[in-house]
Amino acid sequence: MIIDCHGHYTTAPAAHTAWREQQLDAWHAGASAPAYPQISDDEIRESIESNQLRLLRERGADATLFSPRASAMAHHRGDLATSTAWAQACNDLVARVAGLYPGTFVPVCQLPQAVGAGSEAAVDELERCVAAGFVGCNLNPDPSGGHWTAPPLTDRSWYPLYERMVELDVPAMIHVSASDNPAFHATGAHYLAADTTAFMQLVQGDLFADFPTLRLVIPHGGGAVPYHWGRYRGLADMLGTPDLATHVMRNVFFDTCVYHQPGIDLLLSVIDPVNVLFGSEMVGAVRGVDPTTGHPFDDTLRYVRAAGLPAADLEAVLAGNALRVYPRLAAALRSRGAGVAN
Amino acid sequence: MIIDCHGHYTTAPAAHTAWREQQLDAWHAGASAPAYPQISDDEIRESIESNQLRLLRERGADATLFSPRASAMAHHRGDLATSTAWAQACNDLVARVAGLYPGTFVPVCQLPQAVGAGSEAAVDELERCVAAGFVGCNLNPDPSGGHWTAPPLTDRSWYPLYERMVELDVPAMIHVSASDNPAFHATGAHYLAADTTAFMQLVQGDLFADFPTLRLVIPHGGGAVPYHWGRYRGLADMLGTPDLATHVMRNVFFDTCVYHQPGIDLLLSVIDPVNVLFGSEMVGAVRGVDPTTGHPFDDTLRYVRAAGLPAADLEAVLAGNALRVYPRLAAALRSRGAGVAN
Repeated sequence: MIIDCHGHYTTAPAAHTAWREQQLDAWHAGASAPAYPQISDDEIRESIESNQLRLLRERGADATLFSPRASAMAHHRGDLATSTAWAQACNDLVARVAGLYPGTFVPVCQLPQAVGAGSEAAVDELERCVAAGFVGCNLNPDPSGGHWTAPPLTDRSWYPLYERMVELDVPAMIHVSASDNPAFHATGAHYLAADTTAFMQLVQGDLFADFPTLRLVIPHGGGAVPYHWGRYRGLADMLGTPDLATHVMRNVFFDTCVYHQPGIDLLLSVIDPVNVLFGSEMVGAVRGVDPTTGHPFDDTLRYVRAAGLPAADLEAVLAGNALRVYPRLAAALRSRGAGVAN
Repeated sequence: MIIDCHGHYTTAPAAHTAWREQQLDAWHAGASAPAYPQISDDEIRESIESNQLRLLRERGADATLFSPRASAMAHHRGDLATSTAWAQACNDLVARVAGLYPGTFVPVCQLPQAVGAGSEAAVDELERCVAAGFVGCNLNPDPSGGHWTAPPLTDRSWYPLYERMVELDVPAMIHVSASDNPAFHATGAHYLAADTTAFMQLVQGDLFADFPTLRLVIPHGGGAVPYHWGRYRGLADMLGTPDLATHVMRNVFFDTCVYHQPGIDLLLSVIDPVNVLFGSEMVGAVRGVDPTTGHPFDDTLRYVRAAGLPAADLEAVLAGNALRVYPRLAAALRSRGAGVAN
């Protein structure tokens, strides 16, 4: 069993994406959003089978934790009401994918967030989604889209969401969205900077003293963190916190969205494999073939397999860790094969 | 000859640091700043000999490119006038260090910057400093201190500074200062995020078409960039730019401020050694001894030496590249040994 912990519905039908623009146009005009479009199962199947499902099969993975397109969350556009309606629409669409391919695409939800909005709407949507079979959520640490106006993840304003996550036993992937700031390219700067920033917020704070069972996945291989692991160990020492292993790494996990072999080798040599979840971010940030290898940049399974991990560690990275971090995943996988298209 | 390209005067005499606060207090009160304090040569010697010079000698380096404390630049505090007076005071103090230890501490200047201020004051201070023997400058890509309100480094508003840098044949290290944003820890998040962000700005733009001889050093091992080198190669491909080697790596250099062996090994295996300059950021971001090695985290010379580079590449990383990137450095090193304390 190979589980990709990081897949997005980047290939959603055009009508879905167009509705978001219509919704925001209406919001700007002070009008009501139009009705959400009809999207057929066949349209969904086509968008998935020629993309994510094809690649999943070609590369040899079995299941993907599947969430709405991260860059399209765009919590900085509109307000909390539009963000809520958009999150619901995106999550409902992902739920349909999961329903068409049970146990292959396992749904993870987008949360309604907005600058200064608090977490009540996010809690409500998380509850709705988990009741519908979602196994985790994506939490945006910067709903401003690159202006970084939100307090750190350790601030008490996030606590209502963490409380509900703990009760429901679902983790969050800490994932920013598109950049509204010309200083930050989304996938080349904002994503990696946010991963790095989120980790350091957790080092500075003491969030897991209050939430010892909370689990957070930092994507894109943890941003700059594993490459600078010595810096973080030294900073933890300077800050007088316990060592990283006890202070954060009981609760924080990195995915393997690092698009070359040396990066994956570093990740898996520096970070305890128990903290690493296989992920590809596919179809996503970097499409195309690496001319130095002849293989797609985002075929991270290839790098992970070539990293020389002991068999037990490799199994943990490819599946076991995901099953532990996302406890509701096991039940979702048991429905595997029940779907028409599987 | 071993040249550390990244040292800061983090141990400046207390009167210097206190004056900055007095200056800002006066500015807030609408009053004139007090006179800059008298600081004796002995005070400077003591601050250097017990810290940077001691460590330089213990670890076996010969010279340091030495600039004012980066976190204290704080371009977000006060206005352009206070920033200019502060840059002059800091640079004058660094010039005194360089005068006391010629060829051992080679001066690099801080620039007067402020949000939306343009680059005229920076150009003036750069000219003043280079005339006084400085060999490079530190350029802050985010004078707002973590709010990221400045345009990307490829924006034409930066061009007057680049034009003068090219004429004077001095490079810039792209180095942010303290964080005024609670989301960003300075040395654990803002620095690395800024390095990553600056690199991606250069990938997105085409700055070196306009300035083919401009040279920029991105510190802290290039932030997240070498760890995610596959991502950047793939993004360059998606953006339709020439490959990174021709598009940016003729002009961009990374230092070795990465505080553990696996990070340095990755840096030197992924990035052409011709683009890497030995640096330690010492005495700086991470003080303390790594319990896993028994050596200081920031003794990066140890990691670089252990990385297994061929002799010619090692010489280039330890000295040759710095001499090429900072052409005025050679003349400064020829004065080595002329000082009293050397």
